[in-house]
This record gives sequence, C-alpha cells and structure tokens, in this order.
Amino acid sequence: MVKRRMKLMLGVGALAGLLIGTTGTSFAQEIDPAIAEMGVVTDTMWLLLTAFLVFFMQAGFALIEAGSTRSKNMINIMFKNLIDFCIAALVFWMIGWGFAYGASAGGFIGTDQFFIGDMREAGSVPTLASWLFQVVFAGTAATIVSGAMAERTRFSAYLIYSVVISLIIYPVVVHWVWSGAGWLNDYDPATTGDFGFTDFAGSTIVHSVGGWAALIGAWLLGPRMGRFGPDGKPREIPGHSAALATLGVFTLWLGWYGFNPGSQLAFKSQGDADAIALVAVTTTLAAAAGAVSAMIASWIKTGKPELGVTLNGVLAGLVAITAGCAYMRPIDAVIVGLVAGPLYLISTGWMESLKIDDPVGAVPVHLVNGVWGTLAVGLFATIPGNTGTVGLFAGGGAQLLIAQIVGVLAIGAWCAVTSFILFFSIKRTIGLRVSAEEEELGLDIGEHGAVAYPDIHKMPEPEMIRAATGKPVTGTAK
Amino acid sequence: MVKRRMKLMLGVGALAGLLIGTTGTSFAQEIDPAIAEMGVVTDTMWLLLTAFLVFFMQAGFALIEAGSTRSKNMINIMFKNLIDFCIAALVFWMIGWGFAYGASAGGFIGTDQFFIGDMREAGSVPTLASWLFQVVFAGTAATIVSGAMAERTRFSAYLIYSVVISLIIYPVVVHWVWSGAGWLNDYDPATTGDFGFTDFAGSTIVHSVGGWAALIGAWLLGPRMGRFGPDGKPREIPGHSAALATLGVFTLWLGWYGFNPGSQLAFKSQGDADAIALVAVTTTLAAAAGAVSAMIASWIKTGKPELGVTLNGVLAGLVAITAGCAYMRPIDAVIVGLVAGPLYLISTGWMESLKIDDPVGAVPVHLVNGVWGTLAVGLFATIPGNTGTVGLFAGGGAQLLIAQIVGVLAIGAWCAVTSFILFFSIKRTIGLRVSAEEEELGLDIGEHGAVAYPDIHKMPEPEMIRAATGKPVTGTAK
Amino acid sequence: MVKRRMKLMLGVGALAGLLIGTTGTSFAQEIDPAIAEMGVVTDTMWLLLTAFLVFFMQAGFALIEAGSTRSKNMINIMFKNLIDFCIAALVFWMIGWGFAYGASAGGFIGTDQFFIGDMREAGSVPTLASWLFQVVFAGTAATIVSGAMAERTRFSAYLIYSVVISLIIYPVVVHWVWSGAGWLNDYDPATTGDFGFTDFAGSTIVHSVGGWAALIGAWLLGPRMGRFGPDGKPREIPGHSAALATLGVFTLWLGWYGFNPGSQLAFKSQGDADAIALVAVTTTLAAAAGAVSAMIASWIKTGKPELGVTLNGVLAGLVAITAGCAYMRPIDAVIVGLVAGPLYLISTGWMESLKIDDPVGAVPVHLVNGVWGTLAVGLFATIPGNTGTVGLFAGGGAQLLIAQIVGVLAIGAWCAVTSFILFFSIKRTIGLRVSAEEEELGLDIGEHGAVAYPDIHKMPEPEMIRAATGKPVTGTAK
Repeated sequence: MVKRRMKLMLGVGALAGLLIGTTGTSFAQEIDPAIAEMGVVTDTMWLLLTAFLVFFMQAGFALIEAGSTRSKNMINIMFKNLIDFCIAALVFWMIGWGFAYGASAGGFIGTDQFFIGDMREAGSVPTLASWLFQVVFAGTAATIVSGAMAERTRFSAYLIYSVVISLIIYPVVVHWVWSGAGWLNDYDPATTGDFGFTDFAGSTIVHSVGGWAALIGAWLLGPRMGRFGPDGKPREIPGHSAALATLGVFTLWLGWYGFNPGSQLAFKSQGDADAIALVAVTTTLAAAAGAVSAMIASWIKTGKPELGVTLNGVLAGLVAITAGCAYMRPIDAVIVGLVAGPLYLISTGWMESLKIDDPVGAVPVHLVNGVWGTLAVGLFATIPGNTGTVGLFAGGGAQLLIAQIVGVLAIGAWCAVTSFILFFSIKRTIGLRVSAEEEELGLDIGEHGAVAYPDIHKMPEPEMIRAATGKPVTGTAK
Repeated sequence: MVKRRMKLMLGVGALAGLLIGTTGTSFAQEIDPAIAEMGVVTDTMWLLLTAFLVFFMQAGFALIEAGSTRSKNMINIMFKNLIDFCIAALVFWMIGWGFAYGASAGGFIGTDQFFIGDMREAGSVPTLASWLFQVVFAGTAATIVSGAMAERTRFSAYLIYSVVISLIIYPVVVHWVWSGAGWLNDYDPATTGDFGFTDFAGSTIVHSVGGWAALIGAWLLGPRMGRFGPDGKPREIPGHSAALATLGVFTLWLGWYGFNPGSQLAFKSQGDADAIALVAVTTTLAAAAGAVSAMIASWIKTGKPELGVTLNGVLAGLVAITAGCAYMRPIDAVIVGLVAGPLYLISTGWMESLKIDDPVGAVPVHLVNGVWGTLAVGLFATIPGNTGTVGLFAGGGAQLLIAQIVGVLAIGAWCAVTSFILFFSIKRTIGLRVSAEEEELGLDIGEHGAVAYPDIHKMPEPEMIRAATGKPVTGTAK
Repeated sequence: MVKRRMKLMLGVGALAGLLIGTTGTSFAQEIDPAIAEMGVVTDTMWLLLTAFLVFFMQAGFALIEAGSTRSKNMINIMFKNLIDFCIAALVFWMIGWGFAYGASAGGFIGTDQFFIGDMREAGSVPTLASWLFQVVFAGTAATIVSGAMAERTRFSAYLIYSVVISLIIYPVVVHWVWSGAGWLNDYDPATTGDFGFTDFAGSTIVHSVGGWAALIGAWLLGPRMGRFGPDGKPREIPGHSAALATLGVFTLWLGWYGFNPGSQLAFKSQGDADAIALVAVTTTLAAAAGAVSAMIASWIKTGKPELGVTLNGVLAGLVAITAGCAYMRPIDAVIVGLVAGPLYLISTGWMESLKIDDPVGAVPVHLVNGVWGTLAVGLFATIPGNTGTVGLFAGGGAQLLIAQIVGVLAIGAWCAVTSFILFFSIKRTIGLRVSAEEEELGLDIGEHGAVAYPDIHKMPEPEMIRAATGKPVTGTAK
C-alpha cells in the first residue's frame, strides 16, 4: 500500500497490529501496550528531528540566494528568507493547517482545526508534532519564490505573497494529495475512487508549487536591469559570494535528509527502517549524480566546469528524487539524477529565451525537475507488494504515468492561476517592483535603510539617497 | 508534577512504573526489563542529539556577533566564541558539574562529583550523557557575554571571565533550581519546602545569567569609541555582514530545537512525546511572533523594516518562551513572542539612555526577555494535572507569579554581585579594556597579530603597529 | 569484546539475546519479537542520524579550506569539496563498498556487493543504512587531501584522485580492519588469528589515510608560489576569511558527534547508551583540550594567541581521540587532547623544514594526530571486561601498543605507495599543477571561468585572461 501522508491517528491497537504484522508471531491483543507506546516515541522522535533538519533548509535557501546575487541587496534577501518562514509559521498555525488537514469539503479543502491547540490522544503521534513537520514544508514551498524574484521586488509585496501561499495556495494542494481525503489522492488499489497520483515527499506538492509561483512572479515582475542586453541577449549578473552559495547547497542537502526520510512519517518497525534507509540512499545518489552530470554538461557547453551549474545540479537531483525516493532502486535514483543535471541546464536556456529572469534558477530546479521527478515515478516505481503502482519501465502499464501527468497538470493549473491572480493584483495595487533608482542603488538602502557590507559599500549620503529614491533616509545606518 | 531537571537516576523499576503509568494496563513488576532498557535507549538518544544541537548554538552566537561588528575585530570575536566553550567544557568537567549537581550543601552548592568519570548504572541514563547536555548549556550562558563586550575587551580578561562563569556563577544557579536539592526549587505540591520557581529550559537560569554578566561587563567596560557622540547621542556602528548575522540567527533557532525540547530530559513515553511536541511548537511560534512584532515595531519607529531588529526579535521570542515552553498553549506562545519583539526594541532604548554599549543587544535579548519569559510562566502556565502551578491569567492565583519574581530577583542578585566582583577585579588588576590605539586599529592586530580579511584590510607595516599599540608584531600574518 | 565495525547482520535471535544479555532476567526465546524489532529501529535511526551529521562535515572541510586560502581560488575550493563527495558517493556505491565489505579474498579485499541494491533482511539493520554511514566516512577520507593541495592543483587531476581514493585506496584499508574478515582486524581474544589493531572510529583508517595522500600529493605538487622565500624561509599566506574558517571548525566539531558516537553502530541497549555517552564526552573534552593547549603553545611561541593554530588544535584533538574515544576515561581524553595541540604546532614546523606546503595543515592535523591517537589507544585503553585489550599505562603490557604500531605502519605503507603511484602518474600524464600564470591569476578564472567575489576581484578582460593562461575565456562571468 502506498503510504499516505495523513495525520498519524492510529490507535494503540492499530499500532500494535502493525508491529505484529511485520514480525508475525503473535496476536495484536497480546502485544504489551508499552511496546506500542515505544512506537509512538520513536515515530515522534523521528518526525521532530527530521522537522528540525527541514527547518534548517531555510538557512540553505537564504545562503544560495545570497551567494547568487549582489551584495547591495543582501539585507533584503536575508530578511525575506527569514520573515517568510515566520509568516508561514503563524499563518499555517492559524489557517493553513486547517485548510490542509481539516475535515474535507468535497476533497478540495479542509474546514476545521484552525488555530490548532495541544490535542493529545493516547496511542498517537502528537498532532503538534505532525503540525511542525508540515509547517517546515510550507515554509519551503514559500521560500522557493524568493530567489526567482530577487533584487527587484518590493519588500511589502513579498510579505503579501508570503501570507497568501502559506494561507491557501500550498495548503489546498496538500489537501488534494496528502490529507487522505483529497480528490487527487495517493493510489490505493483497495480504495475505490482514488486517483493514483503519487508524490512521496513533494517533488510536485512542495517544489513545483513553489516553482509555479516563482515562474509567474518572475514573469510579471520582468527581468533585472541589465539582465538582457539591448540586443536581447542574456548577460550574466554574477553572484557576490561563491562560498555562501556552496554552503547553502550543503545546508540544503543536509536538510533534505529530513525532507525525504522524514516523509515516511513513522519509524517504529522493520518496514519503516528498510524504507527510510532506501530513501536516504536514493536521495544521496540522485544528488551526487545530478552534480556530476550538470558539471559535465557545463564543461561540454562552455569548455569549463562551472560551479553555479553544478550547485544547481545537486538541487535538481534532490528535487527530482523527492517524489520517488521511497519507490525506486538505487540505480533508478542514479538515472533520475543523471537526467536532472542537464535538464536544469537546458531549461535555464528556455527561461532565457523567454526573457524571464530567475536569478537563482528556481524554476529550472524546482518546477522543471519537480515535474521530471514526479513523472519518473510513473517510469521507475517498483513498490513491493503493490502490483497496482508500478512504473512503465518496471513492468507496469502506463496507468501510473498517466496519473502522474494528470496530477502535475491539475496542481500546475491551480498554482499558475492563483499565483497569477495574486501577483497581478499586487502589481496593479501597491506594485510589485521597486523603482529603477532603488534597484540601481540596491534594495538594502531603499527598502531597509542600511547596507549589508559597510566595508565594501559605504552608506551613501542622505541627500543622494533621497534624490535617488524619493524616500526619507532612516534605519540602522544613520 | 513539574519536571525537575535533575540527573536522571531512576532505577529500572521506577522506569517500568513510569511506562506503566502512562498506559495503565498492567503492574510494574510484569514489565519486561527489555522495555525498560529501551526507555533508557530513547531517553539517552534524545539527550545526546539535542545536546549536539545546543552545541551548535556556539556557532550561531559566533556568527551573530561577527555579523554585528566590524571586520577589524573578526579574529578576536571568532576566537572568543570558540575558546569560551572549550574553557567551559574543561572547567565544567573539573568543577562546575560538581557545584551544580553534587551532594547539596544546604541547598546552595554541590560538593562532590568533581573530575567526573564514567559512572554507569543499570537502568539509568548515563551520567555522562547528562553531563554533556548540561555542559552545552553552561557554554551558552558563558558565550552570551561575548557580544555585549565585543570590540574593546582584552582577550586575556575574557579568558578569566570564561573560567569563572563556568566554574561557579552558572553552576550555583543551576544547583538552586535544577539539582532537585536547591533552595529555589521547582514547585511541587507533594514536597514540603519547595519554593515554586519554575524555569523549564532556562530563560532565567541560562539566558538571564549570561545577560546579567553582560550588563555588568558592558557597563564596567564603557562604550566603544564613537558609539556615543560628543553630544551624548547614540550613533550606530553597523556590523560588517548582514549575511553572517542572519545565518547566526538561523543556526541559533535550530539549536533552540535542542535547547527547549531536549530539556524534557526524557523521551520514553506518550507523555514525553506529547510534552516535547508542544515544546517544539511553542518554541517555533514564539520565535515567529517575535520576528514579526519586532519588524513591525521597527517599521513604525523608523519608517523602514530593519533586519537587525527583526533578527533580535527572533532571539527575543526564543529566550522568552524558554521558561514556559512546556507549560503554555500555542496561543500563549504567540502572545509571549508578540510582546518579546517590541520589548527588545524598547529595552535597547533603555541601554542607550544609560550609555551602555551592547554591540549585539545581548542584554535586551537575554536579560530583559529572560525576565519577561520567566514572569510569563506566572501569567499563562497551565500544567495538566497540577493545580498548584497555574498562572494568573489561566485561573490560578498570584502564587506562581510571586515565586517567579522572587526567583528572578534572587538569581539576579547573585549574578550581578558575582559579576561585579569578577569584572571589577579584572579591571583593577590586568585591565578589562585594550588601549585606544588598539581599539582603533582593531583587536585582531593588537591581540592576535593578524587580520581577518586580508583582501579588505591589509596587514599594516610592523612599524605602524608598534607605534600604535606599543606591542611587538608577531603572529600569523608576519 | 571489542566491537567490530562490520555490517550489522544479526538475526532476530541474536538481537534478542543481546538485549537479554544486558538485562539478564529471562531467556532469549521469551523475548517478544516486537522488542527485537524496536532494537532494529533505534539502531537504524542512530546510524542514519549520525550519518547525516558526518555528511555535514563536508561543509566544514569546505569552509576551513576556504577560510584558510585566498579569495581568488574560492570557486575552485568550494567546487572540489562538493564534487569529491559526489564522486565518492557514486564510486563507493558502484565499487568501493564491495571492496570494503564484500566477501573477503584472503583478508585483503572484498569481492562482491558491487552496485549495491536494496537488500532487506528481517531482524537486521538495513544494509543501505550501513552503506550510508560508510559512504560519508569515505567522503571524509577523500576530502582531507583537498586542503593540502589547495590553490595550485589542476581541477581534472583532483577529479581523478577523488575517484581512485574512493574506489580502492580507502576501501582496502576498511576491509583490513572493519570488515570483520580483514587480516589487520580488531583484537578479540576469543578469535585465533586476529591481529589486535584497534581503531574505534578511524584516527588511522579515515584520517591518516587522507593524511598520507595529502602528504604525498602536496610533496609531488610542490609549494605555492611565494610560500617559501628566495632564502628558503617560510612565508605565511594568510587565508581570506577568519569567519569562514571558524565556522568550518564548529561545523566539523558538530559532525564529529556523528563520526565518533555513530561508530558504535548500534543504540539498542544500556551498554550502547553507556558507550555512546562516553564517546560523546571524550570527544568533547579532547577537542577542548586540544584548543586550549594549541592556543597556549602559539602564545608561548609567538607572543600572541593565534586563531589559526587554535582552530587546528580543536581538529587535532578530535582526530586524536577518534581511535580511542570508546576505550578511554574522560581524564585520558583530556591528556590526548593536551598533547594533540602542541603536536600539531610542532609538526607544522616539520612540514616547513621539509619545504612541503600544506595550506590548511592537513598533514599535521590528520596524519600526525591520527598516528598519535592510534598509539594512544596502546597507552591508555581500558576496556571493561577485556583484559587482552588494555594499554601500557592502564596496567596492560605492550601487546596492544605493538599492534597499533604495526597497524599504523602497514596502513601507512599501503597509502603512501598507492598515493605515490596515483599522483606520480597524474603528474607525468595530464599534469598535477596549473601554470604559474593561472596560479597567479587565481584558479577560479583559469579553471572555472569566473570569480568568486566580484565585489572584491573584478573579472579581468578576456584578452588579459587569454594572454595569462593561454585558455579561451568561457564560463559564467562572461
């Protein structure tokens, strides 16, 4: 049976039965409740520890975006990456969790469990532990957009976006697939009406959701000044610190060991141990393969191995394996990663030909490879004991692949439409973009009244700032 | 019963009883000892893993202080933040643990267990695991001071301070509250003579202790040159890297998931799982609320959202929730955080009006919000099954609030007096502060004979250094 | 019995017996299989979590090397530290694991288990979890070399080296000692033919292996331009960021809490809990003692406390305790660390007198202190219940010390010879070293066509690059 990412609400009896089921030597009613309780302990411990790792991905995203952009915008960039998680936490506590996991209204949206309290139930993983694991995923979906819209977006516009994605765009997608009651549910042959869309840890549900919003946002925002020449040809705007960008990738990779292995949502049985070990290994191999294939691709294309491409190759591999990490053999993971690296590079070219400026490559990494990884489940999945969920190349038919395509399209449509409404509304009201003067001077001065590296860029004289931005000079660096 | 942060020395029987107690289906003597042993396993694993996370807070403190100060002092700042933990580890192993957890002399100080060895006892969490968890807290208390005294303190003076706080100032406070034998113990209705002071993970015991020492040290040291103008008005000295400061806050937030959830000191039962999940969630929400309220407060005050204020808003929220994270509902945690952010900003003004220069805001974050968080327990605490420990706004009387006030005052008096004796003695003997010439040139050159960023600041000529500092030129960058 | 670092392939029966053995109250056949299964759960969880921590050491190594070298080579340095792990992961999956843990050919090398798949066996820790724990160790051994060969090595030469060490040099050493079938096995009095060499977590097997390759590589490569003056005297080349270097040491220290405590390879019993707590504490104390003794030694030598020496003192202490962390009392660990710090400083002098340029001190840290730590086991080891494995100063004879010496020599010979063949072959074919012009301009431009910090170093004009390097200008920063 394909695991569902629903709230863990098994009673003691079910838990004991599960333990029995994997060892097969006695009846459920003979199991000592203390053993069942120990299962709650290890499940909860795993969920919390992996949530902590996923939380730290926020730092990874901040570092990559920081390293890939210019020092004059560093305060703005670090600020966005911090505050979007803070907003996500509050909004997802108030409303988002309820939309995702509350009682379902027609499989489309949840309707209760708002302002979640401390609900305790014997024999169950605490609901608050599940909330913590889910909120760090919501924060990930939210922060993906930041990089694509870097160096030119109004700070207040970004705050509004952060509220809306955590409030409704992301939670609805979660409800569709991971709530256990959504219309686009995981495949389960024993359940009539399930659709069959399968996404273990969120290639589509997290990364593509962020990626669609990033695409729409970057498109409506327009490219940074100077990103495309008068002849329309793309010009690189190098980031200000290769060290920070690389540290960001290491940090994200570490966090992915929470993201994917934690998505088992349980760690109390031999079956959990086997599944989680597989997930950790496929995650590792896909990341490594993505790096190597991206490096080689960049070497072939430009004559030199490029670091930026290779860093994004790691992330492309990680995003791509996320949907199928529990359903593939190690060798499949290597294939998924080997495709992901060059696919990143190719889709970067698509973005440039569309004149969309994505400073960190968020769309090629999270959207394009999120789609690739989701489709790869339909190609390679081999789920022990589940003959209904087997990919095309693994001896199954096209059923699963079709389900994956439908899921990608449905979620893509939801995200593209809602993101368009969101960003277009902002653009027509308070405005999405800072003035050309502010962009030139740096958002740190215009939006936050300070400079990030006073050793490198001195704070300009107040008169100059006022002349350039039309704003009063305030803030820390008076 | 309010959990005590004493050494975990439960025998197998007690452990089994505890397991039974939470499941309630059989008698203690029927429990399989293997299950009790599994409880030792999960307790110890949790204690060690969360200790590792708390250890990494040392890096977070280093990064925040580094980002908030000038590049000419970077070697000195990173050095202090590394070596203070190393000193704390050795001193706390030799003496500090014994003062904290040794056999009590009148509830004031411990008297044995010095130079702790490998004590093993069947059925118990290893004493060395408890030591590790405690030593990383000792290191946290120690390193808080570094930021408040940054950019002007003699390195050797800082080393002496590091020894003394880990040797006696901090351990005595721990003995008073967390040893299980201290005069200012946690409240427990079943025990006559307990005082009732309640601090789950150390808003007062760790953060205020460091905060008091920071306040006294920064006051006796005097402000950095140029921090206050000739007219007495404060002038900002911007830090050299917003990226490092923000990375520091992310790192501390991660470490706090060890600090607070680890302070349950156990993870073997449904009750532990429920409590720890609540702690992780209240910690998250208070941090997020602190960030948002601090951002808004800075926006209102200066017309722009300031990153530095928001970063400290996160920390203010984290410090404030630390005392009560296990005793509050999620909504209470949001309130605690919403207060913490503006409180940080207001108390920063207090410091400036007192002409005390605290480069990183250690006193507003750790002392002021440590006090706020401790008092908040007296307002909001709702401890299931413990009618004696309920806060004023949660339907209890003022009893708990009064206990909190007394605890804050008693510990504050101890820390203020001992810190004053310590820093005043240093000032009158070897001196607390470097010369004006050294401060101007940077402590890296004067104290360590090198520069941190040779790309930005070249190492001056030896003659210039000798003229400026009266010291010979030595060190790495000859 | 000294624990072997072999694949964990115990059946349920053996596992239950082990649990029984430590509690001693019933017969193996009465143990509930669910309890045995819970042991698989906690063992696997520990192995995975500590593997994640060890993975993050890759970031630590990158940061230390980055901070200790010049900004003009930063892309190259971060790139090497990322890609060597990616290569190690793929190669160790394809071949390396099989050479290390496959069926033994005469105790010298493994012969099967290549391209490892998802092997599941009831009652056992998943083989893939063991693979993940081992691959991050392989990555550590590989990346140690990077720092010693920094700022002058051809990128393609480094890629070839990365393949070979992960493919054969490191796996063969693992097979000799940790496979359970190697000729140089851990000591076990009950087994005839065992040699007695004891290395708990890899002072020799990981750190010295990397250290030997670093020594041979740095020697064949020659020193960086300007590292030794025309008079032959060494000249310091200061690193470009003390902040990054220190963050690297904090990160490595954190990772070491995976490296050493994880090497217990199990966490299911009171005995595991006791052993792991001891390991975590000895690791902490040796690191702290190494820092303090190195700081004092540098203070005595140059008149100032030097940060670089102290940072490497931490690492020296960590490397030295790695072999014996499970076999020593806390006080022994302090002694091991106190020796490690000055030993680092002294052996740095040896390197300089040999005119070998090791930019980060990899050889003094990893090779010299790896040897010291391995020999220290022969001096201080006190293994409860194992009278055959006791060090010289702990009341045993010289037997263990002799075994340690033989092991150090045998592994050293293997590594020195194979590394020499490897690097000499590269030198005579594609070349080890970049041109003098490229070295002068920075490897970032010559090897990767970009600059790491465009705010500090502008990308030169294409004509200048072509003139200096004879290479076309390509890459990101066009």
